[in-house]
Formats: sequence, structure tokens, C-alpha cells
Amino acid sequence: MALIVQKYGGTSVADAEKIKNVARRIIERRKRGDQLVVVVSAMGDTTDDLIKLAREVTEQPSERELDVLLSTGELVTSALVTMALRHMGYEAISLSGLQAGIKTDANHSRARILDIDSTRMRKELESGKIVIVAGFQGVADDMDVTTIGRGGSDTTAVAVAAGLRADVFERYTDVEGIYTADPRFVPEARPLRDISYEEMLELATYGSKMMHPRAIELAGVYDVPILVVSSFTESPGTLIHGEVSMEIRNKVRSIAHDLDVAKITVVGVPDRPGIAAAIFVPLAEAGVSVDTIVQNASINNITDLTFTVAKSELARAMKVVEPITRSIGARECVSDARLGKISIIGTGMQNNPGYAARMFSTLSEHGINIQLITTSEIRITCIIKESLVKDALRALHRAFRLDEKT
Amino acid sequence: MALIVQKYGGTSVADAEKIKNVARRIIERRKRGDQLVVVVSAMGDTTDDLIKLAREVTEQPSERELDVLLSTGELVTSALVTMALRHMGYEAISLSGLQAGIKTDANHSRARILDIDSTRMRKELESGKIVIVAGFQGVADDMDVTTIGRGGSDTTAVAVAAGLRADVFERYTDVEGIYTADPRFVPEARPLRDISYEEMLELATYGSKMMHPRAIELAGVYDVPILVVSSFTESPGTLIHGEVSMEIRNKVRSIAHDLDVAKITVVGVPDRPGIAAAIFVPLAEAGVSVDTIVQNASINNITDLTFTVAKSELARAMKVVEPITRSIGARECVSDARLGKISIIGTGMQNNPGYAARMFSTLSEHGINIQLITTSEIRITCIIKESLVKDALRALHRAFRLDEKT
Repeated sequence: MALIVQKYGGTSVADAEKIKNVARRIIERRKRGDQLVVVVSAMGDTTDDLIKLAREVTEQPSERELDVLLSTGELVTSALVTMALRHMGYEAISLSGLQAGIKTDANHSRARILDIDSTRMRKELESGKIVIVAGFQGVADDMDVTTIGRGGSDTTAVAVAAGLRADVFERYTDVEGIYTADPRFVPEARPLRDISYEEMLELATYGSKMMHPRAIELAGVYDVPILVVSSFTESPGTLIHGEVSMEIRNKVRSIAHDLDVAKITVVGVPDRPGIAAAIFVPLAEAGVSVDTIVQNASINNITDLTFTVAKSELARAMKVVEPITRSIGARECVSDARLGKISIIGTGMQNNPGYAARMFSTLSEHGINIQLITTSEIRITCIIKESLVKDALRALHRAFRLDEKT
Repeated sequence: MALIVQKYGGTSVADAEKIKNVARRIIERRKRGDQLVVVVSAMGDTTDDLIKLAREVTEQPSERELDVLLSTGELVTSALVTMALRHMGYEAISLSGLQAGIKTDANHSRARILDIDSTRMRKELESGKIVIVAGFQGVADDMDVTTIGRGGSDTTAVAVAAGLRADVFERYTDVEGIYTADPRFVPEARPLRDISYEEMLELATYGSKMMHPRAIELAGVYDVPILVVSSFTESPGTLIHGEVSMEIRNKVRSIAHDLDVAKITVVGVPDRPGIAAAIFVPLAEAGVSVDTIVQNASINNITDLTFTVAKSELARAMKVVEPITRSIGARECVSDARLGKISIIGTGMQNNPGYAARMFSTLSEHGINIQLITTSEIRITCIIKESLVKDALRALHRAFRLDEKT
């Protein structure tokens, strides 16, 4: 008998009918004889609706109280899914974050999970119940409810799986797993049989919307295997785990892309200590998330400094950077909001310069100019024109033979 | 510095604007220098909406899970009211039933409060905060959320006031207090300055919709004074307490009425042991609440048995009683759904037969026929035609000089 953790997201539980469907799917899984813990998100737009309600009361809601408010969304789903299961004749029980023993720090709205006390979950599992856990929430000292921010329900599921030493976290979705590239852009893209935590983390960070990087990072630390699998088909899905075979490790596994890229270049920056801080500290204080940062080699102590932000943050970032440009004696600052990012990802590529060469020459052959390059040990990223991302994806997918079965 | 408990019901907190108004009223009260604990209900129709959602999932929701679901309504209000107070510059904190230490038994949907652990509330009060408690909910063993059923938020407020040994529970409403009779029926009705727990309990049980009898009973047991006071005017309101002066105790204080009365009479019942059980046990099993029961003196071992139910339960009750009528050998059973109940209430009236006489003769002078009579130590109730209740109210109000200031 295996111990399985599942998660169902907001769209899967958006109304009573969908909740009944989820209950039927949980029962199908249960019939295979395994123990089940199911983490659920808030129904559909509930969280957004609650935030809207809070904003009607005050523009700046207290974070502690916002957590109390938002945590009710997942409680509602957990109770409804449990009712549906019991109605269908299966023993089940809902547990709040508190009851499930999800201990966090007291950083409201972005709490970190510190520990899982799995006593109650184990007790309910051992009594034969299916356990339904309200995702996205935990409890700090004084039994104060916290929410754990972005990627919340996936992160809850991974933490619960780690705390229970579950065999696998089954992550249902509407596609067949993790693909070699986004199939909406690359029709010949294939689902992978497996992928390493590191590769998946790069994929998630560089464009895949499948799961939040935080959940994958946690899964890697606690070695929780995640099976990304379709809700609708019988395909085997993709296993995210730590034991990818040697042979597969020396390959480009997948190509990620991200269309939400804007670039700011501060031109003619005097190259002296403190310049980077002068620009990025005020940006951080203004709450602008800066992504890639590239500083060219300096010529005559003058350099260019380029960084990227999400398109929605470009205007705010420019407002911060423009006065700084003048105060630090730089020449000007320019921006471009029509960019995209394309990344090839595969463990082992750092040992083989051939990958970078093939990526750059493929893009060149297709007349695609590279504006910025960044790399990690297992990833090479190029920033290019947004309008060329689709062509680049297809060309790279062919060049790295991702359409061929391994 | 006094310690005050307040409660705001669902209509007072029905939307963001009303929540801001409630926050302003809490602040007005706070400015008088007292410590405040405020119990809140779910917003407007929230509880009904959640019940509807549960019924979409299953006709018979698990009571434990329904409690998890319904308890979220008050959590939402508690967070929003707290946000509004903080936005207006006042230190405040929301507490769930669990955090407020409201310990109950595990009878989901109708839990009884066993104890209040006021440690957390005291801590927050001592740090200068206004404490906002989610009403209607508590916590059983295993930290399982319970709801405490009818009269929930008032009962929570009384229990919290008892646990904190608060000076008074200020119960806001849209009228000026407890009246000598319903002012919609009797224009000359006056608000009372005070009333005893016993009298208020009879009033609540025999028609006043102001508060649930359960909350008043609890207030009496723990001697929690309740000030029923208008949200909209500066009138002093009515104090419900245990120390009504001797003089006032020997008077009719108020006249209650109830228009939701249906009567069933089983005619020609053989008067032998077990007959009452044969009728009322099946009614209880069918979930029908029986109110007044009257059995006439038996003539030749044949009697009539009459009882009243809410109008909405008449059809269901008749379905149960009709076959029983035949099986116990009674002649027939007849019903009347156009009845009302009128009760005069006042401590001390049991020692003075003059009250009953004056009530009956007043009704007689106005041509009002009495169908049933029941009494308690401090109440005399007559069941009459529904269409005559208003006339009876006004006549009795005059006869007992309730329009005259004491």
C-alpha cells in the first residue's frame, strides 16, 4: 500500500459539479488501494474575490488579517470535497493547515513552512480515511493563521508529502506532463518520461507555468517525487525526481520560453563601486522584481548596464531609474518592452560547449538576433525579439532533436 | 476602565460600507476609554449561501464538514472588521473561536459551549487591542471546529462576556430596546428601562425575536448584564439583568405575541397510559417541534388532546398524527393554522390571581375567544384567532397600563 499526495487547483474545484468530479477522481485513485492525502486550492476566483472585498474596506489591509480572510477559501473547498466523498460512501475528513500540522514562521502572506507535524494526518489515514487538506495555509505561534504565498498549494502538497514520507505527489494538470517545449508553440513537442529537480527548477524559473519554482525546490530538498499527469487521459505523465539516468543527463531536455520580458539599459555608466547598488536598491525598495542583470566589460571606465523586468513593471521601473541615471552621471536610459526569453535546459550541458554553439548558430541561421545571453550550469538563455520567440522555439526544438523519441 | 462586549449581526456587516460603519461605531465606543471585545456574525446572506453550496454537493452534508464550511463566514467578517479598525488607526486583532478559547462539545451544528479559556483575549486586551471574535463557532477536541447553532453569535457574546467577567454585553439593534409590546402593533408601546433574565427569557420564548432564549438563559446563569440599545439613537436602551427592584417585580412588564401558531386537536382519545407517548414520540422522531400541549379533563375515559406547532410544520405533523389517530382509537384529528399567541409576562404574577382575571375579562370585553390557556410562574398565554392578535395586544396594553411611565 502506497501513500499518495494529490493536489487539485482552483479551476478543478471551481463549482459544485467540478467538486463532485474531483471526488470521483479521488475515489478512482483510492480504489487502487493506496492511502490518499489530497491538498485543495480555493474555488475558482475565490481568492481574488476576497482580496477585492478587503480592498473595499482598506487599500492596505493588515497582512495578518488578510491571511485570516484568504485562508477561508481553501477551508471552504476542503469541506465541500470531503462532503462529496462522504456522500459517495467514502470515509474522509477535512483538515485545516493548523490541524494538518503545517507550522510556518509568522511572515504573513509569504510564510515559510518550518515543519510538518503529521500526527493528525497519520491518525486519520490509519483509521482508513481519505484526508483533505486546505492548501496555501499554515499556522504560526499563537495559532495564528498564515498563508504561504505564491505556489502555495503545490508547496503545501510537497511539504505534506515530505512530512508524511509519501511515495509520490501526483500533480494533476490539463496537459500530459512536462513537454520538450510548449506544445501550443511547437506542435511536435513531446511529454518527457522524467526530468530532474534541477532541470525542472530551471524550466519553472525560465517560463514553464506548470509549477512554482518554490514547490520544486522544496521537493528537491526533501526528495519528494512529483508525477505530473493529465486529469483527462491515461498517458503516463512526467516524473520529476532526483534519479535521472546518466545517459539522459547529457542532453538538452526541454526548451522554456517567456514572453513577459522588458529590458532597460542604462547607457554610459561611470564604472565605479556603488553604481549597481545605486540602481538596484531603489528598485527593490519600489518593489520591482529585477530578473536578468548583465553588465558589459568597461571601456575607458564607461559601461552599459542592462536588466530585465516583467512588462507590467516596466513603467514603474523607468520612473525609479530615470532620475538615478542623471544623478550617477550616466548618459541615458532606454527600454524595450517587446522581448522574449528562450532557454535550453539540460543537466550536464556545462561540460559540453557544443550546446551553446549549436544554440547560437541555430538562431543565427534563422536570422534571429540575440540581445542578451545568460547561463547557469544547466541552462543557456537568450533574450530575443518577442515576435521571433515562436520561430526560435521550433528551430531549437529541431536542432536539439527533441522531437525524436529517446 | 470597564470591559465591554459588543455584538454586530449579519445585516450590520452585510457589505464593505457597513463594515466600515461598524468600525466607526466601535471606535466611538472605544473613545470612551473602555476595553472592547466585539463578536461578529457572517456578512448578510453568507451562511445561507454556504448552505446552498453544500446542498449542491450533497443533500445531506456531513455535520462536521458543514461546520468547517459555515465557520468561514464569521472568520471573513472578523478579518474585515479588524482591517477597517486598523485602517482607521486603532490597534485590533481578529480571533477565531479556537483562538478566543471557546471550547465546546463535539455536537456539530449545535455544539454547547463548555468553557471559555480567555487567556488569549486577555493578552490582546492588555496590549491595548480591540479584540474582534468570530461568532457562532467554537472548538472541540482535536481542534475540530464546531458551530453552536441557533442564536449562535449572541450566545458567543454572552459566553465571552462570562469568561472575561465583562461589565456588560452591549447588544445593538435597530429599535430602542425591549418594549412593553411590539411597537409595530401597539403604537403607544414604550421601551423598558430594565427587565429580569426570567422575564426576558419568557419574552424571547413567547414571541420576541430580539434574542434567542439560549443566549438569555446563559446570561442568567452567569449573571452577564445585557444592554439592548439602538444603533441609531441616543436612547438609554433596556438593561437585562438580575437585579430588578421589588416594586417593579410585581407588575406585568411586557406583552409578547407570536403569529406563527397552528393547532392540532386529537378528538375523542381513549384516556389510558401511553397515549401521549404514542403521539409525541413519533412527532419528535419526525423532527417536529411541539410547543404548547393541553389535555382536557377526561369524561367517561375519553379526552381531547391539543397541541401547537409552527405553521410551517403543520402539514408534516398532520401526516404523522393522522395514522396514529386511527391506531389509538381516537375519533378524529383536526387542525387550525390561523392562530396566534399572546402572553403577559411579569415576575411575581403567580402570587396575584388578579392578573389572569384581568387578562381574560379584557379579552372577553373585546369579543376575543380564548382557545387555549397555558401559564408559567411569570407568564399567562392565551391562544386566539390570528386576526384578533393586534386588537388583543392593544387592549391588554391599555388594561395593564403599560403605556404609563413607571
